[in-house]
Amino acid sequence: MDLKEYLKEKQMMTEAALEKILPEEDLLPSNLHKAMRYSVFAGGKRIRPILMFAACEAVGGDVEKAVPAACAMELIHTYSLIHDDLPAMDDDDLRRGRPTNHKVFGEAMAILAGDALLTEAFILLSREINGVPPEISRRITHIIARCAGSMGMVGGQVVDMESEGKSIDLPTLEFIHTRKTGAMILASVQTGALLGGGGEDEFEAVSRFGEAAGLAFQIADDILDIVGDQELLGKDIGSDQARGKATYPALIGLKESRIRARQLRDLAIEALMPLGERAEQLRRIASYIVDRSF
Amino acid sequence: MDLKEYLKEKQMMTEAALEKILPEEDLLPSNLHKAMRYSVFAGGKRIRPILMFAACEAVGGDVEKAVPAACAMELIHTYSLIHDDLPAMDDDDLRRGRPTNHKVFGEAMAILAGDALLTEAFILLSREINGVPPEISRRITHIIARCAGSMGMVGGQVVDMESEGKSIDLPTLEFIHTRKTGAMILASVQTGALLGGGGEDEFEAVSRFGEAAGLAFQIADDILDIVGDQELLGKDIGSDQARGKATYPALIGLKESRIRARQLRDLAIEALMPLGERAEQLRRIASYIVDRSF
Repeated sequence: MDLKEYLKEKQMMTEAALEKILPEEDLLPSNLHKAMRYSVFAGGKRIRPILMFAACEAVGGDVEKAVPAACAMELIHTYSLIHDDLPAMDDDDLRRGRPTNHKVFGEAMAILAGDALLTEAFILLSREINGVPPEISRRITHIIARCAGSMGMVGGQVVDMESEGKSIDLPTLEFIHTRKTGAMILASVQTGALLGGGGEDEFEAVSRFGEAAGLAFQIADDILDIVGDQELLGKDIGSDQARGKATYPALIGLKESRIRARQLRDLAIEALMPLGERAEQLRRIASYIVDRSF
Repeated sequence: MDLKEYLKEKQMMTEAALEKILPEEDLLPSNLHKAMRYSVFAGGKRIRPILMFAACEAVGGDVEKAVPAACAMELIHTYSLIHDDLPAMDDDDLRRGRPTNHKVFGEAMAILAGDALLTEAFILLSREINGVPPEISRRITHIIARCAGSMGMVGGQVVDMESEGKSIDLPTLEFIHTRKTGAMILASVQTGALLGGGGEDEFEAVSRFGEAAGLAFQIADDILDIVGDQELLGKDIGSDQARGKATYPALIGLKESRIRARQLRDLAIEALMPLGERAEQLRRIASYIVDRSF
């Protein structure tokens, strides 16, 4: 299967699972469930679930076991977008061309829909899953919670917010990126490896992949914000610049950013060496992430 | 030990554990960790952790094993207060006489501090704990997440918010209360029983206790909002009325509310019959919850 087909297949698998897993709109409180679904089904690329499935396959696992965790990852991603878009935060009216959650449902409901999605993720992560030992459930919940929390995604968002309009240095930018985006990408592949039954060596290999790929992904996003194609990026071109957000190209230049993204891509691919053929789609995703910014 | 001493002891135990468990203020991002700690140490009565410890003892368990989960419960409670106080929600400037989180740290940070506290709760719940089987960790995480989510606490908050200034009926008020407050009280005692190694019968007994006590707690709070002593209530007297919120006394009268609270207290105490002497403090707490409103 070529990468395009693979991405499509796993994206559709995620959509179908999210549809089944999320509370129905007619369940009380109906407006809350509508608000949750509105943002979950707003056309995401499902890159985190796809990475989780690919990591699961890379250790020879059955992707079915990763479905609830993959959905959980997407719910956490969605909640973070809803809260980031709030008037008190980035104050965005549009996301992927559609009105943001608070524009449609009001600010209070958007806050609560985000809260509920984050909580729903942990409902999913703590589900009983046939063939998944509870110790693995415990461990992946721990990894995902840490990567999403004050030392992970939320922490990255805080420093990003505090840095707006200021001139920051490369270590600070890296602090933001490794946490705000990188942490959840790392958690996705680590979770995939654990749910796939991977051993400690495989977990390590996938972790090294995830660290490099996570940062590469963000550098590529920064590049796309300048030169990119809006459809690929999923947000307005130039929006980082307009907001005075630091980016890799702004700090080290476009050329150097591309070199760095390529190096990280190669590092990510190299880390998968011990996994052999089974990691092929994971390798292709790393290339895809970086190459789309060229 | 009399109840007053018991409450004090378990409250101090919770304070000490929270102090140890929460990320230090000097950890990056420092402002985020300051904001989290500000609200966690704002003088809560720690009633949910105390209920968890008492339920753990009621099945003959070791309370030490319940410490991380008890802290998690308090973090979830704190996050819900921070988000409830936001300008888009209740727009409160003060809580327990101190400026609310967003008044001190700004709205964006308050949203993120709430998010981080909720996430931190799941970091704690998924910790490895000596002597706690991972299957129990999985199960309590599931219970707590469900009780905190869109069909539990957040759902209750949504309906509460949507009902403001409207005239609602008793079933709607009960829907709000059983979810907004009741669900987390139920989760506290259920979690305590499971971490204490209780069997299914004990779990059932404690659950019946939690359902009745949770509603009794809220009716007593509603009564205190009218006749009460501000110190006991932890919020301004008359604040529900001022906001046009439905309460039991407003719907069924003060006298009938007291009768209902007493019935629920008796039901709660009766449910603990199979647990014998070990459930003494849990019984006393149920009485205390209701009797403080007389």
